[in-house]
Amino acid sequence: MEYRRMGKTGLQLSVLSFGSWVTFHKQIDDSISDELMGIAYDNGINFFDNAEVYAAGESEKMMGRVLKKKNWDRTSYCVSSKAFFGWRGKQNKPNQTGLSRKHLTEACHEALQRLQVDYLDLYFCHRPDKAVPVEEVVRTMNTLIQQGKILYWGTSEWSAAEIMEAHRIAAQLGLIGPSVEQPQYNLLHREKVEKDYLDIFRTVGMGTTIWSPLASGLLTGKYNNGIPDDSRFALEGFDWLVRQWMEPDKLAKVKELTTFADELGVPVATLSLAWTIKNPNVTTTILGATKKEQLTENLKALDALPKLTPEAMNRIDEIVGTKPELPEY
Amino acid sequence: MEYRRMGKTGLQLSVLSFGSWVTFHKQIDDSISDELMGIAYDNGINFFDNAEVYAAGESEKMMGRVLKKKNWDRTSYCVSSKAFFGWRGKQNKPNQTGLSRKHLTEACHEALQRLQVDYLDLYFCHRPDKAVPVEEVVRTMNTLIQQGKILYWGTSEWSAAEIMEAHRIAAQLGLIGPSVEQPQYNLLHREKVEKDYLDIFRTVGMGTTIWSPLASGLLTGKYNNGIPDDSRFALEGFDWLVRQWMEPDKLAKVKELTTFADELGVPVATLSLAWTIKNPNVTTTILGATKKEQLTENLKALDALPKLTPEAMNRIDEIVGTKPELPEY
Amino acid sequence: MEYRRMGKTGLQLSVLSFGSWVTFHKQIDDSISDELMGIAYDNGINFFDNAEVYAAGESEKMMGRVLKKKNWDRTSYCVSSKAFFGWRGKQNKPNQTGLSRKHLTEACHEALQRLQVDYLDLYFCHRPDKAVPVEEVVRTMNTLIQQGKILYWGTSEWSAAEIMEAHRIAAQLGLIGPSVEQPQYNLLHREKVEKDYLDIFRTVGMGTTIWSPLASGLLTGKYNNGIPDDSRFALEGFDWLVRQWMEPDKLAKVKELTTFADELGVPVATLSLAWTIKNPNVTTTILGATKKEQLTENLKALDALPKLTPEAMNRIDEIVGTKPELPEY
Amino acid sequence: MEYRRMGKTGLQLSVLSFGSWVTFHKQIDDSISDELMGIAYDNGINFFDNAEVYAAGESEKMMGRVLKKKNWDRTSYCVSSKAFFGWRGKQNKPNQTGLSRKHLTEACHEALQRLQVDYLDLYFCHRPDKAVPVEEVVRTMNTLIQQGKILYWGTSEWSAAEIMEAHRIAAQLGLIGPSVEQPQYNLLHREKVEKDYLDIFRTVGMGTTIWSPLASGLLTGKYNNGIPDDSRFALEGFDWLVRQWMEPDKLAKVKELTTFADELGVPVATLSLAWTIKNPNVTTTILGATKKEQLTENLKALDALPKLTPEAMNRIDEIVGTKPELPEY
Repeated sequence: MEYRRMGKTGLQLSVLSFGSWVTFHKQIDDSISDELMGIAYDNGINFFDNAEVYAAGESEKMMGRVLKKKNWDRTSYCVSSKAFFGWRGKQNKPNQTGLSRKHLTEACHEALQRLQVDYLDLYFCHRPDKAVPVEEVVRTMNTLIQQGKILYWGTSEWSAAEIMEAHRIAAQLGLIGPSVEQPQYNLLHREKVEKDYLDIFRTVGMGTTIWSPLASGLLTGKYNNGIPDDSRFALEGFDWLVRQWMEPDKLAKVKELTTFADELGVPVATLSLAWTIKNPNVTTTILGATKKEQLTENLKALDALPKLTPEAMNRIDEIVGTKPELPEY
Repeated sequence: MEYRRMGKTGLQLSVLSFGSWVTFHKQIDDSISDELMGIAYDNGINFFDNAEVYAAGESEKMMGRVLKKKNWDRTSYCVSSKAFFGWRGKQNKPNQTGLSRKHLTEACHEALQRLQVDYLDLYFCHRPDKAVPVEEVVRTMNTLIQQGKILYWGTSEWSAAEIMEAHRIAAQLGLIGPSVEQPQYNLLHREKVEKDYLDIFRTVGMGTTIWSPLASGLLTGKYNNGIPDDSRFALEGFDWLVRQWMEPDKLAKVKELTTFADELGVPVATLSLAWTIKNPNVTTTILGATKKEQLTENLKALDALPKLTPEAMNRIDEIVGTKPELPEY
Repeated sequence: MEYRRMGKTGLQLSVLSFGSWVTFHKQIDDSISDELMGIAYDNGINFFDNAEVYAAGESEKMMGRVLKKKNWDRTSYCVSSKAFFGWRGKQNKPNQTGLSRKHLTEACHEALQRLQVDYLDLYFCHRPDKAVPVEEVVRTMNTLIQQGKILYWGTSEWSAAEIMEAHRIAAQLGLIGPSVEQPQYNLLHREKVEKDYLDIFRTVGMGTTIWSPLASGLLTGKYNNGIPDDSRFALEGFDWLVRQWMEPDKLAKVKELTTFADELGVPVATLSLAWTIKNPNVTTTILGATKKEQLTENLKALDALPKLTPEAMNRIDEIVGTKPELPEY
Repeated sequence: MEYRRMGKTGLQLSVLSFGSWVTFHKQIDDSISDELMGIAYDNGINFFDNAEVYAAGESEKMMGRVLKKKNWDRTSYCVSSKAFFGWRGKQNKPNQTGLSRKHLTEACHEALQRLQVDYLDLYFCHRPDKAVPVEEVVRTMNTLIQQGKILYWGTSEWSAAEIMEAHRIAAQLGLIGPSVEQPQYNLLHREKVEKDYLDIFRTVGMGTTIWSPLASGLLTGKYNNGIPDDSRFALEGFDWLVRQWMEPDKLAKVKELTTFADELGVPVATLSLAWTIKNPNVTTTILGATKKEQLTENLKALDALPKLTPEAMNRIDEIVGTKPELPEY
């Protein structure tokens, strides 16, 4: 396994990490998550990603049970949570969502309980919240750090300017700004990571923990001929993913990419994962899995890196046609 | 004339302003610029825009001569310059371009001499300069403010994150960040102003001085049937503008827009200008002109504002198809 | 016993202190360490030095057991730990070494558990870590102070410029910089303390807790005729010390020094220890010992101070030839 | 000519620059200095170095007369002065030397007059002054910047910790620290630049303007067979240079270096100059000259860079034996 510093911090994360989104509680039970986390850990993965909203808190509970049973040295891994959406769904009351000091603090406490750990290594603002002053967010995160409940804090799906605003306020107050962003990044969704964030990588030096590296599975090629019954797109509540990805244009690109992956002698999923970590501004790419074989296969992404020659990278850019154009200055 | 505060500053600028780019020295002589500036001033325009690079310094010299002759009360108008490109073109030596303290300082001195004024109201970094630390830029601009040589400083064509980085450094040092940005903005080029900058309008509150509101003249409809001999696109050294704008797709949109403007009973140029100042994040839209009639016509943009009903705005969006999609959060 | 303020802090340390490096767990058991710490304490020593890496954590555990058994008033002594090397040796994983917030925090927690104390009086960065931003180190140390887990923080074997960089960041953020450095210092290794650090003693006022005052025992004269079986140099894993010290040139100096000590009527070890605390920039010199007699003998260093007349100091400088030349300004 | 940014600043200096030390007024008159500065400028040199103490002020007066006569665009070159030693020699009274606000300010005024310029691009503290608080120095330099009398300030022959102390104070006060140091650096004097300053290049990012790149001429080989009558070492008041350099050991190294330079087919002086600018932490190497041919020859140092292959660099290190050993961490 390769490890990278998370942006300008001293923290080292494995370039491939393991996330529970969608799968935990919804698609897999304790015994499978135990098996998958074991495989991940044994292969050098040291970052396990979670959020209050994943399976309405059940995802963190399941991960907490596995972590307790595994009894790994707490210093050998990192675990995260994220607050914003709450976990009660349509029953969420005021202050049970968003980024107010009350919710950020209470959501942290709840995550610690569910995960059965004393502190989170990473704690994310799962989305921006324009109704809450950035100063309140920055101060609350710093209070949680002071209290020893979290070590680093981050953002997820914030705009570059929103991230910089948090840093501006932090600079003014002498506090710690966000050090990591969790953006979507994959061959079909590149603009944020490859264009919008360039200046923040260069200046404040954010790390990134990538979600949806396979475009919700589209880049595995498994939807090339329709939606299988046991797939994520067939799950209830994920219509928005289907709408986003099951477009003829995107499917056509994935098919062509699959052909190119075949030429390189590597599964298109592996190629797509390797492509994300080829980007030096990516700290870690989060893998989800429901089956042992799937995880084992995806862990081979590191071995596929040598296939990504400059020529191959150009060919991929031609196929997907998503490379953002950069400003002249 | 309507006046707007420039972002969060106390400065008031007329929503229409007058710029010398391209025209001064290249297309018009002292007598015409004298006439045009007179008309502008008499119609309530209080901001005259310039830059070291416009006509290699000759534009500022011409404006300086007119200002001296007019002898208007210095408190009744604002004048700007911009540094970055230098004015010696291919003869520029090291430190004669860019945003180092040496060039920003010396370029300011030179602009004051050419414009024959004691201070600039606005002083812009004409482009970002990644080779110079933002702290050096922020400190230099503040030193020039301390020395009374400039009143406000700004940026031009910086990314949202670059602008925020300047504000972050300024916050850290207790100094003044940029308070105005000069971006291109017109019906065919909207993403920066309507999407990228939204967060900085909301947080640090930048004002904007819009350049190219008519897409270098394309939105006047005068290129609808080719490039006239006496037009900007026919000038030497402006091939890049021709390449950028003379595209069939864009010309088609302009033609359709022209038809719609006819329906509304207003010239398409006037409509296009009015559309820019309809955006409350626009402080002022800079008009260029080579002829008296042209300027007089464009000054009517304010009168056309009532034509821009919600329905008309939607119709325009449909025609140009350039309205940026905003992120959900 | 004489006590000195630790640099510019208010903390008072005995000029001779007691360290567990090499000896604890490796050379001596609980009963001997109990006896030695008792002698030290009874003779007025109030600082006991330790580190996570010493005997892979066993050194801290042993000292913790002794402290618990002794049940001395917690306010009557100071205890330290140091983080950087980790304690798992070749099994160290990412984030289990270095100066990231994660390791500094977790190593502190582990040291508190091993030493069975509620807080450390001193907590050292055992080496510089160029891969971690100094800001992260400074902030983490201040967080630990805020949390009551440590009282003062320091560095060990950092360069003068690295120490000043920590103070620069601390000054910028209004935080507490390092107040003590633990450098090697003895008659054969003087440059850092007598030359490199002079400016930082004068400006930020670092205290110093000296390690290896006897050059790993070389200055006791016991290696004058080869390496005894029961000595440190005969231990496994300390080849690097042998290579560093068992050089003909150095041994010759020690022999000449031994002769001079005889003339003064004091053992060369005692003379060498006294010489370190003669330097007013030394806060405390750390003694290690495996035998009662050795410790008792070394405690007499204070009594030997009067022997170090200006003439004796000059003679010693001539013998060792290690006095650094200072810059003119 | 190649240009480099001066440390972390935006200023660009030519890698070879021209200094007046020793030569101006003492060895050459106005007509020769005019010729030499003309050659330097025409070859792309944009930095001219001076100091109050050089020839007791006469050096700056001479350079000022040449600059006035040349009438080069002020933005095309940089000029420096340095304060500390005063210029009245043994007649210096209190406050006519050192780094007090009074002397720094008055010395700046005097240098501006002698050099006949409105501002200095660089202004150096020629030595540290332990009798003056660093805060007074930092504040005075920032005041001079605010007043537009200097653009950047620096140090000369300060220790790494002294430079960092200035940066610490500047950080605390939100002021500008020194951005350039003028150290001696040549094949026989390497420790400061290659060891002591490494941390400050990495952290605060000082630029360097190198003096004595030829070890006062020793590295030209001209002293290989004794001191010529018309050489610097034969001048009155330069005995300290003779004592420093005319050592058998050093002369032997220079002779061997001369042989190696012959093998490479390049004069030893050219090789020695090229070697200094091979170091990326060197911003510019200052050339002195008394004759046209000498300057023309030395300007060829840039062409000699390709000769400095890794193998040649190793060979040179073996010959001079001055490469400093770096600490492990």
